[in-house]
Amino acid sequence: MITSAAAAAHPNIAFIKYWGNRDDLLRIPANGSISMNLSGLQTRTIVQFDTSLEEDQLVINGESAGAEALQRVSATLDRIRELADLKTAARVTSENSFPTGTGIASSASAFAALTLAAATALGLGLPEKELSRLARIGSGSASRSIPGGFVEWQAGKDHASSYAVSLAGPEHWDLVDQIVLISREHKAVSSSQGHQLADTSPLQEARVADADRRLGICRQALLERDFPTFAEVVEQDSNLMHSVMMTSSPPLFYWEPGTLEIMNAVREWRQEGLQVCYTVDAGPNVHVLSPAEHAEAVKRKLTALTNVKSILTCTPGGPAWLIEP
Amino acid sequence: MITSAAAAAHPNIAFIKYWGNRDDLLRIPANGSISMNLSGLQTRTIVQFDTSLEEDQLVINGESAGAEALQRVSATLDRIRELADLKTAARVTSENSFPTGTGIASSASAFAALTLAAATALGLGLPEKELSRLARIGSGSASRSIPGGFVEWQAGKDHASSYAVSLAGPEHWDLVDQIVLISREHKAVSSSQGHQLADTSPLQEARVADADRRLGICRQALLERDFPTFAEVVEQDSNLMHSVMMTSSPPLFYWEPGTLEIMNAVREWRQEGLQVCYTVDAGPNVHVLSPAEHAEAVKRKLTALTNVKSILTCTPGGPAWLIEP
Repeated sequence: MITSAAAAAHPNIAFIKYWGNRDDLLRIPANGSISMNLSGLQTRTIVQFDTSLEEDQLVINGESAGAEALQRVSATLDRIRELADLKTAARVTSENSFPTGTGIASSASAFAALTLAAATALGLGLPEKELSRLARIGSGSASRSIPGGFVEWQAGKDHASSYAVSLAGPEHWDLVDQIVLISREHKAVSSSQGHQLADTSPLQEARVADADRRLGICRQALLERDFPTFAEVVEQDSNLMHSVMMTSSPPLFYWEPGTLEIMNAVREWRQEGLQVCYTVDAGPNVHVLSPAEHAEAVKRKLTALTNVKSILTCTPGGPAWLIEP
Repeated sequence: MITSAAAAAHPNIAFIKYWGNRDDLLRIPANGSISMNLSGLQTRTIVQFDTSLEEDQLVINGESAGAEALQRVSATLDRIRELADLKTAARVTSENSFPTGTGIASSASAFAALTLAAATALGLGLPEKELSRLARIGSGSASRSIPGGFVEWQAGKDHASSYAVSLAGPEHWDLVDQIVLISREHKAVSSSQGHQLADTSPLQEARVADADRRLGICRQALLERDFPTFAEVVEQDSNLMHSVMMTSSPPLFYWEPGTLEIMNAVREWRQEGLQVCYTVDAGPNVHVLSPAEHAEAVKRKLTALTNVKSILTCTPGGPAWLIEP
């Protein structure tokens, strides 16, 4: 017997970042975070619970996934199977719409789509809050790809209290995220490993202690569409996360020379009057944010820089959604 | 009546950095620091107390200095005149041996040489400790250019307790500092202004709270010539200072793309087995440190990088010294 469903979800870009866990296993974060879903980029996932399977199977972008990825997916499926009081193994088939090798993290959209598809296949009819919690188990930031638009992940203290909610729908603010792709010259460290290094930085405690202040400023600036205030707190938050990364033991440097070129340029453009700011995740790519009316001017300036290979343009995206298999 | 003396001093490179003051006026630092004097680079200063002068005069590299620089020099001279119970104005003539426009800060060597020359001209015969205190008034890091070799500036709590002492002479360890000059593309903020922004970063308190740990590790690694331990703490300390800079309000970014290229490369070379590490002051230049036996290999690798304009090579330097006028 086969019971299946398919779902899709967008990745998201965090304005106030998640870095470091209070609980690594459950991915209860050290601090809350705020993000925007990225329309145009998506992961599409089919989950087929099949009584003829002996164990879970995972195919990503047409290729059979490794043991580590499968284990992580199975852990999320186990949680969902538990809720349905079922032990049937599943075949999971996942496709990312974004260009491969770009360094755009797919774990957020992947675990959000997986969670929605699996829960639907088993007829669980879970509320958004519960889907967000379950997605979080697979990848912390996946909790933020369940609700739509502009999203806040409330850190919480345990599984029940740690989930994301929508602050405003995608139509609330016409922010544009131009993702500038930078070639990576150095070996990366996975986010999951990186989170576990956060507490080795002498700065992580101070970053976390200051998080409520930043969350408050960012939330209000978002709700009021106050770009200048938004820009300052988003850049500071990004710099704070990279400060923790660069001062952990061992240090994590995700910035490349091209990353810094763009960051320095964006600050200058803002000083010159353009509404633009940057944020950088655990990779070298720079997310360059601006209201829609400034996006074309920003793009012209970006393409004139030496280290810019290509740009992906995203607008605010909706929540995770069901699709035809 | 004219009474004069001339002195010289080296700039220094801090391994554990000074950033932020407990007292801005007296330049009592938020934390202690450790440095090495840079042989080969020097400021030479003549001080002539001349009863025929109505006010202090300052000539730097053959040009009459601006009001702000003169005021800073006069403030140091006032302290020294007070000790000699004298009010005579002085003519100060100062020359830097290092190439102009390289971004190598001259205030440390300049105020160390000024202090020694002025105190000598007035026959004060002050002990090193007192010279270091007086130099500190003009420029915090100048306190470290008075003693020789490897130097620790004990933060202290007031004028009397805040001065630098030699941890070991220049012959103790054959460290080489290859200063890689990077062209600056953006406007700089002076160190004096920068220090005053330190407390606006949510990270400064944590950086300062952790300083004794880093000072202890660095001091011991220096005394034991333990390069691997030295390398880790020196890079972490540099990253910590720049973390505070980049997260202050307004943020201070001294790194250029070329700065980051070299930092990233140096860490890779060390992972490959080369004894090398970096440290970066309040500017884009990278100080690349290695024991003498590794310096040639490091230089070959540096010159192959794209952003390297030129390299100044320095070894450990002695204390401030008297010269013929």
